[in-house]
Amino acid sequence: MKQPGNRSASRGQNGKMLDNFFRPESVALIGASSTPGKVGFDILKNITDAGFRGKIYPVNPKSDELFGLKCYHSANDIEGKIDLAVVMIPPKFIPDALGQCASKGCDSAIIISAGFKEVGPEGARLEREMRTVAKKAGVRLLGPNCLGVIDTDMHLNATFAAGMPAAGNIGFVSQSGALCTAILDWSFANSIGFSRFVSLGNKADIDEVDMIEALGEDERTSVIVGYIEGVSRGREFMETLLRVTKKKPVILIKSGTSEAGARAASSHTGSMAGSDIAFDTAFRQCGVMRARTVEEIFDCAVAFSFQPLPAGNKLAILTNAGGPGIMATDAMDDTRAEMARFKPETIEKLKSFLPSAAAFYNPVDIIGDAHADRYQSTIMALLEDSDVDGIVVLLTPQGMTQIEETAKAISYASLIHKKPILTSFMGEEMVGSGIDLLGKNRIPNYSFPERAVGAFGRMVEYESWRGRPLKKNIEVEYPRDETEKMIKRFTAHGRGAVSGERALRVLKAAGIKTPDYKIAEDMKKAKEFALEFGYPIVLKVASPDISHKSDVGGVKVGIGDEDSLERAYNEIMVNCRRMVPSAVLHGVEVHQMITGGKEMVLGMSRDPSFGPLIMFGLGGIYVEIMKDVSFRIAPLTEDDIDGLIHEIKSVRLLTGARGEKPKDIDGIKETIRIVSQLTIDYENMIEMDINPLIALDRGQGVYAVDARFNFQISE
Amino acid sequence: MKQPGNRSASRGQNGKMLDNFFRPESVALIGASSTPGKVGFDILKNITDAGFRGKIYPVNPKSDELFGLKCYHSANDIEGKIDLAVVMIPPKFIPDALGQCASKGCDSAIIISAGFKEVGPEGARLEREMRTVAKKAGVRLLGPNCLGVIDTDMHLNATFAAGMPAAGNIGFVSQSGALCTAILDWSFANSIGFSRFVSLGNKADIDEVDMIEALGEDERTSVIVGYIEGVSRGREFMETLLRVTKKKPVILIKSGTSEAGARAASSHTGSMAGSDIAFDTAFRQCGVMRARTVEEIFDCAVAFSFQPLPAGNKLAILTNAGGPGIMATDAMDDTRAEMARFKPETIEKLKSFLPSAAAFYNPVDIIGDAHADRYQSTIMALLEDSDVDGIVVLLTPQGMTQIEETAKAISYASLIHKKPILTSFMGEEMVGSGIDLLGKNRIPNYSFPERAVGAFGRMVEYESWRGRPLKKNIEVEYPRDETEKMIKRFTAHGRGAVSGERALRVLKAAGIKTPDYKIAEDMKKAKEFALEFGYPIVLKVASPDISHKSDVGGVKVGIGDEDSLERAYNEIMVNCRRMVPSAVLHGVEVHQMITGGKEMVLGMSRDPSFGPLIMFGLGGIYVEIMKDVSFRIAPLTEDDIDGLIHEIKSVRLLTGARGEKPKDIDGIKETIRIVSQLTIDYENMIEMDINPLIALDRGQGVYAVDARFNFQISE
Repeated sequence: MKQPGNRSASRGQNGKMLDNFFRPESVALIGASSTPGKVGFDILKNITDAGFRGKIYPVNPKSDELFGLKCYHSANDIEGKIDLAVVMIPPKFIPDALGQCASKGCDSAIIISAGFKEVGPEGARLEREMRTVAKKAGVRLLGPNCLGVIDTDMHLNATFAAGMPAAGNIGFVSQSGALCTAILDWSFANSIGFSRFVSLGNKADIDEVDMIEALGEDERTSVIVGYIEGVSRGREFMETLLRVTKKKPVILIKSGTSEAGARAASSHTGSMAGSDIAFDTAFRQCGVMRARTVEEIFDCAVAFSFQPLPAGNKLAILTNAGGPGIMATDAMDDTRAEMARFKPETIEKLKSFLPSAAAFYNPVDIIGDAHADRYQSTIMALLEDSDVDGIVVLLTPQGMTQIEETAKAISYASLIHKKPILTSFMGEEMVGSGIDLLGKNRIPNYSFPERAVGAFGRMVEYESWRGRPLKKNIEVEYPRDETEKMIKRFTAHGRGAVSGERALRVLKAAGIKTPDYKIAEDMKKAKEFALEFGYPIVLKVASPDISHKSDVGGVKVGIGDEDSLERAYNEIMVNCRRMVPSAVLHGVEVHQMITGGKEMVLGMSRDPSFGPLIMFGLGGIYVEIMKDVSFRIAPLTEDDIDGLIHEIKSVRLLTGARGEKPKDIDGIKETIRIVSQLTIDYENMIEMDINPLIALDRGQGVYAVDARFNFQISE
Repeated sequence: MKQPGNRSASRGQNGKMLDNFFRPESVALIGASSTPGKVGFDILKNITDAGFRGKIYPVNPKSDELFGLKCYHSANDIEGKIDLAVVMIPPKFIPDALGQCASKGCDSAIIISAGFKEVGPEGARLEREMRTVAKKAGVRLLGPNCLGVIDTDMHLNATFAAGMPAAGNIGFVSQSGALCTAILDWSFANSIGFSRFVSLGNKADIDEVDMIEALGEDERTSVIVGYIEGVSRGREFMETLLRVTKKKPVILIKSGTSEAGARAASSHTGSMAGSDIAFDTAFRQCGVMRARTVEEIFDCAVAFSFQPLPAGNKLAILTNAGGPGIMATDAMDDTRAEMARFKPETIEKLKSFLPSAAAFYNPVDIIGDAHADRYQSTIMALLEDSDVDGIVVLLTPQGMTQIEETAKAISYASLIHKKPILTSFMGEEMVGSGIDLLGKNRIPNYSFPERAVGAFGRMVEYESWRGRPLKKNIEVEYPRDETEKMIKRFTAHGRGAVSGERALRVLKAAGIKTPDYKIAEDMKKAKEFALEFGYPIVLKVASPDISHKSDVGGVKVGIGDEDSLERAYNEIMVNCRRMVPSAVLHGVEVHQMITGGKEMVLGMSRDPSFGPLIMFGLGGIYVEIMKDVSFRIAPLTEDDIDGLIHEIKSVRLLTGARGEKPKDIDGIKETIRIVSQLTIDYENMIEMDINPLIALDRGQGVYAVDARFNFQISE
């Protein structure tokens, strides 16, 4: 929240976010025009045609009257207060115009004009300049290079789109203006209504976070859909969406993948955690449903807009033909919906009026000669079953089929019961009139059964998200003074990479178990420590003068008993004396060796918009070849930690598959908690990788055996 | 091919498959009626309305004239030859009517009537009876309980569907009559034409294999689409499709999954190889493209119907708006299409006429103010680039957009160049006239960019399949006498299960390596054999009187040296003498122990329709938890074997990932070859499982270490 001053300035008199963009009492049209084909003409026409009831002030230095309205030569000439300015004059004139508007009390401006960032460096300069002027004047900007804004409740069409959509409860926000025009055109033909419609343009000031917040507050908006290409304020995006999605469903397309976001935390994380994974993870973590296609956006929008949410995931399928019924059933596999199992009394009821050739179990096939009344009785019987949470009704146009009457019967049932009904009237020409009727009665219809089932699946998904209580972010205490000092020391002289022993020391200081070691000045002590740790152990020469211990024969691993320890100790001493005769030898380091556990990888790569993207998986082949990893963005909740662990397929190797003992899941969780906290506390930590992290049996602990960090060093 | 007599009987005079169903010179309508609402009325009306030019013989005992045509009281009264009978009388009268038709030279009958298998056991009896009569009379049957047949070239509409589709090159075959009506209705509104349209009904005689063969032979059909729920002749299906798909694309929906097909070969195979996997595998093996939804069927049908195949997979995307261009690019990830990289001269050309704000690289954004001429010049420039194999053209309806003119420009370009062009004019009302024009000019249009890209991907997929030479099935020689004798002996007394040592002996006889063993009558011999095999080895007591050797302490595994061998030998002797004092001991079996390789699983589960479904994967967690397995249906080609091995993700563990030595891939292949042959040769082998199959390093061999078979025993 970097612009608190601006933000409060953008609240209208009733305190709602950006309210003057949607519910202004007066609009100044800077650059209104009487010349058809000009944007200034289209917008003036749209705003008057749509029946906006507030004051309209066209501004054009060359006109005295436009569309029967008094036209002002400049904003300065306007007598009253300006709530909203819609600006479509060449970029270089805009700063001045904004100043004039501000002097008339204007705090909100839609910059329709193009010619800014999108045309190159000079445009970007103009955009920055405009933003500075606006900020100083206390004016929030939408755009530039955008289509504008629609609020159907206020009859406000401040866009140059061709036509005004019907009023409805869908809020739409898009980073692509052209997509807006396509979606409006589609809405005209499909009985779809919008509450608010927003084109973001270049996002010089207002972005998707602001607008989704505003749509979230708007009472007439009950579902939010949108198209975004990128998010610059990732944290705010997540925080806002976490709140909004608990009130209303949000379905977004995020297109493209930013290469810049694909920086690598480790060789593993790097190859897999591109920023698209960050988006996917962020969306899931804050309850945004991600649509992969525009079709899916539409399918969801209509379902959420028209129908109540299901109380559970049990779906009944009703059809007048076997094939489509089977296809609908098949489609359920890809969703969180499940086939309802009817109560015995429901089946008895169905048997009492359906022909014997019908199928009484889900999917219910009322066969090809079904009239509307058979559809209606069946729908009512199914809706009365408390084990049914919703219905998908399929219709194929057969000889006896009553298309319009069936549409009416479905609409009637939908009025009586508070369970969602979705339909697929298959075909186009013959079923067209039925589909129109369904649309008018707010029954979502889909050309194909699979899409109806998919939309129900999304409703189930949302209902389950909405009902889940929000968990709070984990906070872990650890001796930060100590890690602070270490990291400062290790990253002195501009070295961002911290690895091996040093990285492990940081983790240990933060509370993560690492293999223990002690310095033994002689053989006797070494044996003592070895017994203390338990064999096998590792011996390393202890000398301030030898940095690459392995290179001089100063390391021996896998020492299994006292005899081997004696041999190893002596060999190390001989080797080091011979190879580095000048070195002072303080004896050996006796290192605990972690054996017999499961190797895991725990990494972090800082996403430029969302922050620390944590990755978890089993080590080696599971991460490298099977790509069996899970992601979350820190800070984490306990649910996130459970998700990280249980979303990997190979989790059964940790919980005790194939006769193995369960591993120390509590220890894994604690390690993840600490890592989450570290990545939050150290914003300059851009990469982190614990590999391997070894989980021993339950209660035996989890050890970081090797690790590395990468810090961004400012100097 | 179980009905060679019938099959030849169904060829028309020009020798084409089932030709009289599509190109009859005379049609008898058994049960024609003058009563609207009756099927006999609808079909008579359809056949006359469509303008069928052959002879039409209505048959109805109560009429002398129908629709101005002479009506016959029975088929016996018809003077001329009957090529095709369309039958819509009650089931019990049909056998007699078929006999009469046959006596008039009729060899083909469409049974429209319902009331057969679909209504229960009595109907099933009637269906069997009808089939017997028809077979005896040499009449091929389509149906019963079907919608009928359309051949647009012959103006033949022998269905009771509402309306006749436009002529075109799409052949459609469906097991669901209701889906036919929906698809016809959809075709009316979308400029889609069909060559032939077939409803299969109950498939008493003619099934999808026959009909796909017939559509394959039909010159006017250039793409085959269909809906099936099951296949009874799996082998013939695969053989036929393998031929047909090399001539024209075939896209099928297979809905539902048969539980009966999900029998388990092993605990692994069983849980994973349901018959849906068999379908998926069969489709891929014979080049059928599987559609998951009706929408996908449509999307593919239009693309293949209208446009030429691409020569390669390089796609150019052209758009007047950034967002949709990005979405189209994103969608390519799920296909085999790739983004084209333009030649430098193409980019120069684009720069010469596009505005500077355009994007000249793929996706090409000609920006929002693009008129039709800019679309046209860009399309032409892209089509002239030999590194471009096809184009997806996107259009959003913006202020300056010339919708119809752009549709014309695209159509013009499509006439000049032989590369596929697909479009997505986004929206509905405003873009409607453009979409109509595109349809008329055979440019497939999709509501959304993703679907256009998906359809291009299918074209690439098909082109690549069509170009791949057909490999021949592998045949392997092995001493079949020997395996024959063994299997007979092991499965005596009605025991179908053969496991452990016995199963390994069968595999060894067939040429698969198994751990070797020799019988040593004394300690000295045992040591000699152990040296021969190399340590470690396994010792087992050799006694005809001891069957469960482990239970009496008669087995010792992992014997690493001569000392251990001595101890083990003595212990075995002591144990056995004590536990089974009466047993005659012949010394010990010295078994080779296979260590250090990769464990794999090779299984087979015989699918009821398609035959031996071979499964391959790495053992243990890879198959059980990661489900990382591959499938093929035997008999296999060398390509299939490569596929089995290289389709598993964990193949890198076999080819030498992470610094390991590559395993004996040639040995794995040879083992799969032999297994394929065994499953073909032993049709009563319903399950087989080699687990583990161990692959040593390259050149060191592949060993079956444990195995089991399950044979169906007839007595």
